[in-house]
Amino acid sequence: MPYSLQQLSDAEDIKVLKHRYFRAIDTADEAILRTLFTDDIFVEYRGGEYLVSLTGNEPMIEFVLNSFHAKVAGMHHGHMPEITFTSADEAEGIWYLEDIFVDLERNVLTIGSAIYKDRYKRVDGAWKIARTEYDRILELVEPIRPELTLSEHYLGKHGRKGAARGDISHLITWFNK
Amino acid sequence: MPYSLQQLSDAEDIKVLKHRYFRAIDTADEAILRTLFTDDIFVEYRGGEYLVSLTGNEPMIEFVLNSFHAKVAGMHHGHMPEITFTSADEAEGIWYLEDIFVDLERNVLTIGSAIYKDRYKRVDGAWKIARTEYDRILELVEPIRPELTLSEHYLGKHGRKGAARGDISHLITWFNK
Amino acid sequence: MPYSLQQLSDAEDIKVLKHRYFRAIDTADEAILRTLFTDDIFVEYRGGEYLVSLTGNEPMIEFVLNSFHAKVAGMHHGHMPEITFTSADEAEGIWYLEDIFVDLERNVLTIGSAIYKDRYKRVDGAWKIARTEYDRILELVEPIRPELTLSEHYLGKHGRKGAARGDISHLITWFNK
Repeated sequence: MPYSLQQLSDAEDIKVLKHRYFRAIDTADEAILRTLFTDDIFVEYRGGEYLVSLTGNEPMIEFVLNSFHAKVAGMHHGHMPEITFTSADEAEGIWYLEDIFVDLERNVLTIGSAIYKDRYKRVDGAWKIARTEYDRILELVEPIRPELTLSEHYLGKHGRKGAARGDISHLITWFNK
Repeated sequence: MPYSLQQLSDAEDIKVLKHRYFRAIDTADEAILRTLFTDDIFVEYRGGEYLVSLTGNEPMIEFVLNSFHAKVAGMHHGHMPEITFTSADEAEGIWYLEDIFVDLERNVLTIGSAIYKDRYKRVDGAWKIARTEYDRILELVEPIRPELTLSEHYLGKHGRKGAARGDISHLITWFNK
Repeated sequence: MPYSLQQLSDAEDIKVLKHRYFRAIDTADEAILRTLFTDDIFVEYRGGEYLVSLTGNEPMIEFVLNSFHAKVAGMHHGHMPEITFTSADEAEGIWYLEDIFVDLERNVLTIGSAIYKDRYKRVDGAWKIARTEYDRILELVEPIRPELTLSEHYLGKHGRKGAARGDISHLITWFNK
C-alpha cells in the first residue's frame, strides 16, 4: 500500500528528528537536545564494552552532555532509516549507526556500528523519540596511536569541562575494564 | 517535473529495500535476504582486490551468506540515493557505499567506497533489486594491527561456521594474491 | 505544518543535487560539476588544517578539479539532511559530512566530519547550490602507514595529472604546516 502524503510528510519529520539528535550529541547542543525526547523516553544501548540503560528526558540529556564532554570527540552518523507507522501518531524506526569515538581520557579510539530500533510519538503536534535501543554489530577499539593528531576538536571547546561535568556512572556499565 | 505522490512513495519503498539489503548482509539475515531480489538478478561488484559476478536469486543469497560468515565482520552503508523512474514499475538507482570489512581468516582490514548502479522492478506489488553493479572508488587494505580489538562481533555469533559454510569460489575472483 | 507534495518533491530534488555533488567531487566528474552551482555561489570550508574561501561557479569547479587530482583519493559522504524552505524557490539545508582523504603528495591520511550549512535556489526550474559552508567537528590526521595499500584509486586514473593541474593556492590556506 503506498504511503499517504501525510505519512511521507511525517516520515520526513521523523528523519529530521533523528538527524538533529545525532548532530546535537556530537556538538553537545543542549537547546536541541531539549526538543527531542518524550518525558518518559526509554534508552538501552548494548555496546561491546558498555551498557547504557536509562529512563526519562532529564536523565537522557544529562547522559548525553556528560558523555560528550570536552575530553572526547565523536562522530555519530545514523543511516538508512526504515520507518513504519503503527498509528496516526506513532511510528517505529530502524537505523544503522556508524560511529567514531575518540576518548582522550581513556586513550581509546573506537570505530563501530550498531542497529537502532526506535519508537516515535507525536506529542502536541511534534514527533519525539519515545524509545531507542541499539545492538552493536561491529566494534573495533585500540589505543590512540601517538602518530594520530586531533587537528579539530569541536567538543574540546563546546563540551562540558572540569566541575561542570556530572557523574553518570549509574547510567552506564563498562565491561572488561 | 515534480515527483508524483506515487513516485515519492515508490522512492521511499526502494530506499527501504536497499536499506534492508545492507542491514541483512551485515547481520546474515537470511529471512530478509529472501525478500530482496528478482529471480534473475544480475550482480557484478568490481573491487580493487576482487570481482564478484553472478546471476540469480539463489546464487546471490548463497554468495552473501558464505561471504558474511562467522570469521568476518562487516559494516556496509549505502548512502545518497539518486532514484530515477524509467516506467511505472521500473527504476534505476545510484548509491555511494562506505564499507569496513574485517577478515579474520585473511587477517586483512579493508576500508573502502564504491558507486552502485542498480535497477529495480515492481514484482507482484513489491519492489525488488533486479540488477546491481558497483565500481570501487577508494579501497584501503592493511593487515589487522595487533593492537586492534574486535570488542563486538555480531557475525561471530550469527554467521555461518565450519561445515555450514559453502564454497563460493566460482562467484568471486581474487586479484594480487 | 506538514510538507506539501511540492515541498516533498523539491526536498527530494535538493537531496539528489547534494548527493550528485559528493559523487562528482570524488570522481572528478566535470560534467556533473557544471550543473550544480549558481553563478555566484559562495563557499567557505573551515577545516582544522585549512580554510577554503571562494565565490563563483568557475572558481568552485576549478577548486574541486584541482583538489581532487590524481595524487589524492577521497570519500566524501553527506548525511542526515535537514531541509527548510524559506520561499517557494529557496531553501536551506544542514548536512553532516564524513570524509576520508588520502593525500599521496603530502603523505597524510585524514578522517574527519563537518557540519554543512547550505542555501539552495531554484534557477530556470532546477535547484542549485547558492551557498555552502562547513565547520569541522572532528579531524584526525596521521602519516600514511607503510602497511596501508591503496588497492583501488579511481582518481589516480580520472583525476588531473601533471601540467593539467592548476594552481589553487589563492583559494585555500593551510595552517600549522
